[in-house]
Amino acid sequence: MPANVTQKLIESHLVSGEMTPGEEIAIHIDQTLTQDATGTLVMQELEALDLDTARTEVSVQYVDHNLLQTDEKNAEDHEYLRTAAQRFGLWFSKPGNGVSHPTHMQRFGIPGKTMVGSDSHTPAAGSLGMLAIGVGGLEVAVAITGRPLHFRMPEVWGVRLDGALPEWCSAKDVILEMLRRHDVKGGVNRIIEYYGPGLASLTAMDRHVIANMGAELGATTTVFPSDDAVREFLRAEDRADEWVELVADEGAEYDIDEAIGLSDLEPLIAKPSSPGNVVPVREVAGEKIGQVVIGSSANPGLRDFAIAAAMVEGRQTSPEVSFDVNPTSRQILTDLTLMGATTALVVGGARIHQAGCMGCIGMGQAPATGHNSLRTMPRNFPGRSGTKEDKVWLCSPETAAASALTGVITDPREWARAEGVKYPTLDLPKKHSVNTAMLVPPLEVEEAQRITPVKGPNISRLPDPEPLLDELEAPVLLKVGDNISTDEISPAGARALPYRSNIPKLANFSFTQIDETYPQRALDTQDTGHIVVGGENYGQGSSREHAAIALRHLGLRVVIAKSFARIHWQNLANFGVLALEFIDSADYDGIDQDDTLKLSNLHEAVNGTDPITVENVTKNSSFQVRHRLSPRQAKYILAGGLIPQLSRDKDGDDAQAATRPRTPSTDS
Amino acid sequence: MPANVTQKLIESHLVSGEMTPGEEIAIHIDQTLTQDATGTLVMQELEALDLDTARTEVSVQYVDHNLLQTDEKNAEDHEYLRTAAQRFGLWFSKPGNGVSHPTHMQRFGIPGKTMVGSDSHTPAAGSLGMLAIGVGGLEVAVAITGRPLHFRMPEVWGVRLDGALPEWCSAKDVILEMLRRHDVKGGVNRIIEYYGPGLASLTAMDRHVIANMGAELGATTTVFPSDDAVREFLRAEDRADEWVELVADEGAEYDIDEAIGLSDLEPLIAKPSSPGNVVPVREVAGEKIGQVVIGSSANPGLRDFAIAAAMVEGRQTSPEVSFDVNPTSRQILTDLTLMGATTALVVGGARIHQAGCMGCIGMGQAPATGHNSLRTMPRNFPGRSGTKEDKVWLCSPETAAASALTGVITDPREWARAEGVKYPTLDLPKKHSVNTAMLVPPLEVEEAQRITPVKGPNISRLPDPEPLLDELEAPVLLKVGDNISTDEISPAGARALPYRSNIPKLANFSFTQIDETYPQRALDTQDTGHIVVGGENYGQGSSREHAAIALRHLGLRVVIAKSFARIHWQNLANFGVLALEFIDSADYDGIDQDDTLKLSNLHEAVNGTDPITVENVTKNSSFQVRHRLSPRQAKYILAGGLIPQLSRDKDGDDAQAATRPRTPSTDS
Repeated sequence: MPANVTQKLIESHLVSGEMTPGEEIAIHIDQTLTQDATGTLVMQELEALDLDTARTEVSVQYVDHNLLQTDEKNAEDHEYLRTAAQRFGLWFSKPGNGVSHPTHMQRFGIPGKTMVGSDSHTPAAGSLGMLAIGVGGLEVAVAITGRPLHFRMPEVWGVRLDGALPEWCSAKDVILEMLRRHDVKGGVNRIIEYYGPGLASLTAMDRHVIANMGAELGATTTVFPSDDAVREFLRAEDRADEWVELVADEGAEYDIDEAIGLSDLEPLIAKPSSPGNVVPVREVAGEKIGQVVIGSSANPGLRDFAIAAAMVEGRQTSPEVSFDVNPTSRQILTDLTLMGATTALVVGGARIHQAGCMGCIGMGQAPATGHNSLRTMPRNFPGRSGTKEDKVWLCSPETAAASALTGVITDPREWARAEGVKYPTLDLPKKHSVNTAMLVPPLEVEEAQRITPVKGPNISRLPDPEPLLDELEAPVLLKVGDNISTDEISPAGARALPYRSNIPKLANFSFTQIDETYPQRALDTQDTGHIVVGGENYGQGSSREHAAIALRHLGLRVVIAKSFARIHWQNLANFGVLALEFIDSADYDGIDQDDTLKLSNLHEAVNGTDPITVENVTKNSSFQVRHRLSPRQAKYILAGGLIPQLSRDKDGDDAQAATRPRTPSTDS
Repeated sequence: MPANVTQKLIESHLVSGEMTPGEEIAIHIDQTLTQDATGTLVMQELEALDLDTARTEVSVQYVDHNLLQTDEKNAEDHEYLRTAAQRFGLWFSKPGNGVSHPTHMQRFGIPGKTMVGSDSHTPAAGSLGMLAIGVGGLEVAVAITGRPLHFRMPEVWGVRLDGALPEWCSAKDVILEMLRRHDVKGGVNRIIEYYGPGLASLTAMDRHVIANMGAELGATTTVFPSDDAVREFLRAEDRADEWVELVADEGAEYDIDEAIGLSDLEPLIAKPSSPGNVVPVREVAGEKIGQVVIGSSANPGLRDFAIAAAMVEGRQTSPEVSFDVNPTSRQILTDLTLMGATTALVVGGARIHQAGCMGCIGMGQAPATGHNSLRTMPRNFPGRSGTKEDKVWLCSPETAAASALTGVITDPREWARAEGVKYPTLDLPKKHSVNTAMLVPPLEVEEAQRITPVKGPNISRLPDPEPLLDELEAPVLLKVGDNISTDEISPAGARALPYRSNIPKLANFSFTQIDETYPQRALDTQDTGHIVVGGENYGQGSSREHAAIALRHLGLRVVIAKSFARIHWQNLANFGVLALEFIDSADYDGIDQDDTLKLSNLHEAVNGTDPITVENVTKNSSFQVRHRLSPRQAKYILAGGLIPQLSRDKDGDDAQAATRPRTPSTDS
């Protein structure tokens, strides 16, 4: 039977299960990616799992999130990560080397490989024809030990691209069009696979933009074929020999079919405060702005900066706008500088920041209250910028640059018309400035085993797991609405991020965007437990497992929601928190905050598939919920989470005895 | 009588008094400089003084300290400063334009002019033959209203420079030599004037380095002549027509004489945690380091970055070192980029940060606990880096770059010998990339009066002044040692700086480096008052008047110390806190924390010059102190500070009716 790219990727790595949507499968994982904000827990998990050395082909620990270093905590995390990476045989990408996703794509990505990453934008590697899935940190740790990744086979959603993008539109407008059509839940339990003649006009880095923000649709991942565009990219990265062709077979089919005519697109923008809130730029043109930020893994490519530079060159950005530019990596900053674009940006009024995620994760660049901020970033969830009442908009570099110049939201086509400007033709280098000196390679195993990871005083240990209670009678401490993101459950930003290695401290920030009293009220239930009730798509966004662990530390035992985002659901299970779905969504309305709920015979319930009855003691009523655990998952929920389960099964059949090349093929 | 440069500068601006050391004089002020961390209070003071429009020739509000924007507060300060600058007829330098001192020197500095600045490194402008004095914000506000600056005529300390610097030594080593000889109090009540044949080999920017860190000697200011080197600098800045020659008369004399043979110098370094802790680099060579930072107003010039770039070019910094580079201004980043130095630094492993003060003021770049950090910055007071137990060293760019390459403290001469490297000859541009687009010019007066400064919720108002009590019986809430800096009294850094516009919030950080319980204990005395006892040189370092205002808000009424640093002494007086000196320093030992002291008949005492008797109620003993207030200062201490006094005298003879050109001469 003719196979699509997704099926080829999964089939070639399938360890168990059938590729039928909804069935649990297990696949072998070739590569892993961790970043600092989630990586410190991954390293603690590797310690808890008593790993000798990484069993993957390539595992890389990046430092890109927490670069501000407002006190000693960030730098101590960096030191822990550097030494732990050495201990476990990982590559270490130094602070300043770049944002994980584009850097991984440039240095390590190989068509046909699988990857998990403890970052929700890991699917960006799909741009090279990889199957790259964002998961919680513990699943990355498990993959590093050589065990396969288990997940339910998603539907494959084929998106056929026709035509070519018009001038002043770019890849960002393609993914914004997908979000305009399908909103932030449209991709749940789906893998998006792009194909068709429109691909020819999209470079590998353009595809990165689209694959990266597939995360905002809630998709499991996004996949592109590996074709000439990928070959050209690898050639520019001095890795031509690592190219492998990977395209869908003639006649391949998809579970869902869709088409986008690229030629019909126009500049789009996501309004505050959801990536799904997309409208044409022209509909909101003229709104005054205070800030424009260019950068992040959602628009990471040389061309994304170069196009802005070409538009700004010889002009000045508005005196009332802060024009912030975050180079994605030192390599991209080098190439930008060599081609003169850095000068054009600086002279045009840009504040050039260090290479990293920066304002995208709320580490700096917070706008003033009430001031519109236009960003080329992937997310504008409320407060993620660091400003509580923020107004963040998401758009392409073209729209961002035009708006920075005028001081108001501006359709770049209108700006070009008014200024008499032609769409710039960019003269990008055919060879990139490859330099691996800030990538510290893994040590030889013997030398690695002599390393003791350096733990500063801010690095706590993981909470002790506790087996699932058979019966729970506990209060609903919080009831929230639809699409609650992990940014709201466990905030990032400059105040909270430095505590990402310190669960008890980080727990104090839980849900504070929604209810400042939650952490203290929750802490009072640490021993007795409490419940949170949510709406649709609970836990969307970032992959941070802190949103499970820190709340578990505060006594969270059960979340009942209309539906869950995939990664957060898995993180809850991994750390022994039971995620339950309403069978009838209307029952959500019958629960109030502070109601006491009672769940009985939970051990039996999770081992079966029957509906579970929840008694509302306060309301003297009851309703039904279901778990979606596979028998495998039920086993570790009962044990209190994945770590105690794996520790028991240490020598079980799960572990892969893969050997790992000591000199991963990165560059010459 | 032949005059030195200092005397010429003062005489040409003298409004009242005699130029006899120790006598109070008043001089007319031509220019002012404010930065954001102190500027928000200056703007509030201008509002309190009911200013119509600035009466100086040039007044510039810079934004360089608080650039991280970890939440909305920084950006709201920027917006307040921008709109307040417009309201009062000031220039506004946007965030990202650059650090105040070098930027002011490049765009506004004119030989022969006077300046006050609410930043202790304001003396850097002495490099151009200006008399530039760092003062508290209120004195800058007063100067902006056209009133003269009052201060006691300092001694003039002539430092004759002979010879020329050897290879691998630079200007930083000259000022470190001065600190090695005289420590952090050596310059108190002195103006340092450099002269002699050694000047010929020092560019204007080299002189900036030396004048800037004269602040670390406690000097009132530092003065250089305006000679060919200054002319060449102004020519490169496209301001050749603003050059005026200003040199000492033949036979001019100095109150104090000193000489430095430049040829005898060697690379020097200040050990943790005082700028006066200077030793030759060779004595500490081999110490492992974790961080190197290049930048700040203490090594701001193009050559300071270019020399590091030349050393790093084609090499890689140590994998265990974070190599942070803070360009001083967009202009310098532009020129560095055009000459290829940015590329050399980035490829060599540098993290290029946005143009600004950054880690120098503890806004980011905090090192890990226990890791040595080498910086080209001016200060290494304990905790100023943002890390409580920090180990910060101060050195030249040459020493910093050599150490970044080796990973240990390294004498650059040794590195050069080992590597077979010659001292680089730098090919610096003769014309700099002048670009004033991020300098927002003052509005026409009529338009300015229509502006209402925008105040975000974090911008408080000044505390209400209260007249001096005639009798005070109050506890000693804190007793501290020698050389306590304003960084310890009212910390900067990423936690505190965002509250620089919010006195009640900022007050919670007072003295917390020394005693975390102080703010709460002090707040309990808000109505009844308390006393702090200090050693020598109390209040050295930064000019921040917050160290007076925030503590006054907490109930501080009297500080008794062995001696005071000039700016802080003046700030205490400006805000109605009485600064008293022990007549016999030994009495310091007879006071313990929590002793109750009693002062009587204070009104009469401050109007006279007799010793004041302080009763130690707890110890049943007494000792004598003196104030050093002039009759003019006594008047406003009685009124509760300078603002109530000036408000009373509003139409008095003090105000200058200077008219101000609307188009200050900056560049073509």
